[in-house]
Amino acid sequence: MAQPILTLTTDFGISDHYVGAMKGVILGICPRAQIVDISHEVTAYHIAEGAYLLSQAYRCFPKGTVHVAVVDPGVGSTRRAILLEGAGQFFVGPDNGVFAMVTAREKHKAREISNSRYFRHPVSRTFHGRDIFAPAGAHLAAGTPAARMGKAIHDLASLDFEFDGRAGRVLHIDRFGNVVTNLRANVFDGRAAALRIGRTTISTFAVNYADEPRGRLFLIEGSSGYLEVSMNQGSAAKKTGCKVGAAVRLVSR
Amino acid sequence: MAQPILTLTTDFGISDHYVGAMKGVILGICPRAQIVDISHEVTAYHIAEGAYLLSQAYRCFPKGTVHVAVVDPGVGSTRRAILLEGAGQFFVGPDNGVFAMVTAREKHKAREISNSRYFRHPVSRTFHGRDIFAPAGAHLAAGTPAARMGKAIHDLASLDFEFDGRAGRVLHIDRFGNVVTNLRANVFDGRAAALRIGRTTISTFAVNYADEPRGRLFLIEGSSGYLEVSMNQGSAAKKTGCKVGAAVRLVSR
Amino acid sequence: MAQPILTLTTDFGISDHYVGAMKGVILGICPRAQIVDISHEVTAYHIAEGAYLLSQAYRCFPKGTVHVAVVDPGVGSTRRAILLEGAGQFFVGPDNGVFAMVTAREKHKAREISNSRYFRHPVSRTFHGRDIFAPAGAHLAAGTPAARMGKAIHDLASLDFEFDGRAGRVLHIDRFGNVVTNLRANVFDGRAAALRIGRTTISTFAVNYADEPRGRLFLIEGSSGYLEVSMNQGSAAKKTGCKVGAAVRLVSR
Repeated sequence: MAQPILTLTTDFGISDHYVGAMKGVILGICPRAQIVDISHEVTAYHIAEGAYLLSQAYRCFPKGTVHVAVVDPGVGSTRRAILLEGAGQFFVGPDNGVFAMVTAREKHKAREISNSRYFRHPVSRTFHGRDIFAPAGAHLAAGTPAARMGKAIHDLASLDFEFDGRAGRVLHIDRFGNVVTNLRANVFDGRAAALRIGRTTISTFAVNYADEPRGRLFLIEGSSGYLEVSMNQGSAAKKTGCKVGAAVRLVSR
Repeated sequence: MAQPILTLTTDFGISDHYVGAMKGVILGICPRAQIVDISHEVTAYHIAEGAYLLSQAYRCFPKGTVHVAVVDPGVGSTRRAILLEGAGQFFVGPDNGVFAMVTAREKHKAREISNSRYFRHPVSRTFHGRDIFAPAGAHLAAGTPAARMGKAIHDLASLDFEFDGRAGRVLHIDRFGNVVTNLRANVFDGRAAALRIGRTTISTFAVNYADEPRGRLFLIEGSSGYLEVSMNQGSAAKKTGCKVGAAVRLVSR
Repeated sequence: MAQPILTLTTDFGISDHYVGAMKGVILGICPRAQIVDISHEVTAYHIAEGAYLLSQAYRCFPKGTVHVAVVDPGVGSTRRAILLEGAGQFFVGPDNGVFAMVTAREKHKAREISNSRYFRHPVSRTFHGRDIFAPAGAHLAAGTPAARMGKAIHDLASLDFEFDGRAGRVLHIDRFGNVVTNLRANVFDGRAAALRIGRTTISTFAVNYADEPRGRLFLIEGSSGYLEVSMNQGSAAKKTGCKVGAAVRLVSR
């Protein structure tokens, strides 16, 4: 029998016991699970960044993988726990838009996770990652049919995430200081001459990182397919002074 | 056959090869081990914080799990290596109090780990995590009986960790800036009106994070059962300016 | 059948989806792989530090382990992808010196990885970790013979890494602030009286960390076998103000 795969994407960081506790719960339910961390360093409460990171990774995983994502500023409120099926995979987390980049791309079915038989008891008020999402994901990985978790729903929460074709924003800053925008690289065509970010305007479009001289900003299509602002062996984020959420704008010729 | 589970809690950080080296040793002895990181970001040499993080996670793991904890300022000195059995699980590490929050709660047996047959040779002076604790834990996970490791002992080192019912201290600051104290949440009853931490006095006791307005400090029973100082979508640690080890005090009405 | 082991050493950090994506690719090809992180916190583009960390960890792993190392400032350029066999293990990564500390010690065979059948397609310009190194390593772990990956080569790139017996440099700073130099501890013999690093000269050679008083700098043979500058319960890196790459020099009596 294959080993089921379960991934985790959270804003829990790795200093605390939170992720370890989730993994203990998972292995108690599904002892053969291959557990993979996508990232636990999502900026705290930043749902869009979690959505982005998961959207960049899930297609690398085989069919049947269960992705648990917990970026959950509304824990303890009335937001629902949900389960999605799409791309032959499963997605488990809060209904707050964290899967919006998956549902925008993939045909999918959604369910509310309401069957408390699949929860860890007692369910705390503050740690649904351990008490609801980890156990529900582990039961799915262990073969429990999705239909047992709860009823189908059709009114998923959306992500507060605008893109109008010209103006966008910074979605993520990676470890190398590459600035990932929510503009698809193919918008940077004949009409647009440059990208404006803060007080900086960048008009060089590069093909390879290594082709550019050190210290000069350029645009590149990242491995994500999104337009990124980069610098060869330097931090574009530092150079432009921008942060996650900052505005970017295409400039016409 | 089930896959044995082995957890790691250390102050080694994740920048170095230390944790990877321990895992290589473990897999060489117990190739089927499921290895789970609790945390490697315990503040360097801070035994009480390691004790706290492990104490918050171990109950999430199934029977038979082996927990290896290495927060070990006395490495190379004469402190003993120990093995505990309690809660149906095993605990392996230095005898310096790192398991004190487990032994305070669980019926347990303790042994000194003295049988060098279960060490990695040559045993270095500075890296017992790799040479003693990882291999001893892996042999346990692989089924070696605890009694072969060494003799029973009854004089475990205790944790320098006081709590007198009114005064306590900061045990841990989590990724969100929540300040975990060593006061049980149930001490905050009718008699006490507020908690004093540094120059700040906090008298609001909240039930859900999401119920509180942004930016206001409040007290809450964390998922740990300990009293925590928190702020909805903000860092209570930054707001109060406190660090791990800082004093906290209950204030009467 | 044993579970194959595959390790990862990169400068990708853990905030991004990069490592998770690599793991998804690996598990899609070799579902039973035990994946172990050596470190993802290699200083960005610092090949020598990656070489050092891997060199300190690989001997802890059993025969047959596949080590994938991606510190790759030349991604997208013409640098080759390579595969080494040595010490009964496999090493997969860019041909830029990242395995130089392995090849200096171990009898080895090298191959270029050129058979695109073992790549993930389409191969991106910027993420060979996901598209070349992870899948090639996973195929090896799954049992594909090395000879199918490409032809033997004999002109490996070397590491820009000098050591003349007296002058050296800082190779790595560990989590505790220990400063690892590229001097072997045994050079500090009768002839040398002290080590000079920045404006600090250190002449105490200690055997155990715990033997030294708090706050005093000393030299010690680290678990690596390299000479390290250390401080009991303090950061030698902060005290000396040095960084990775800084010069160190033996001072004669």
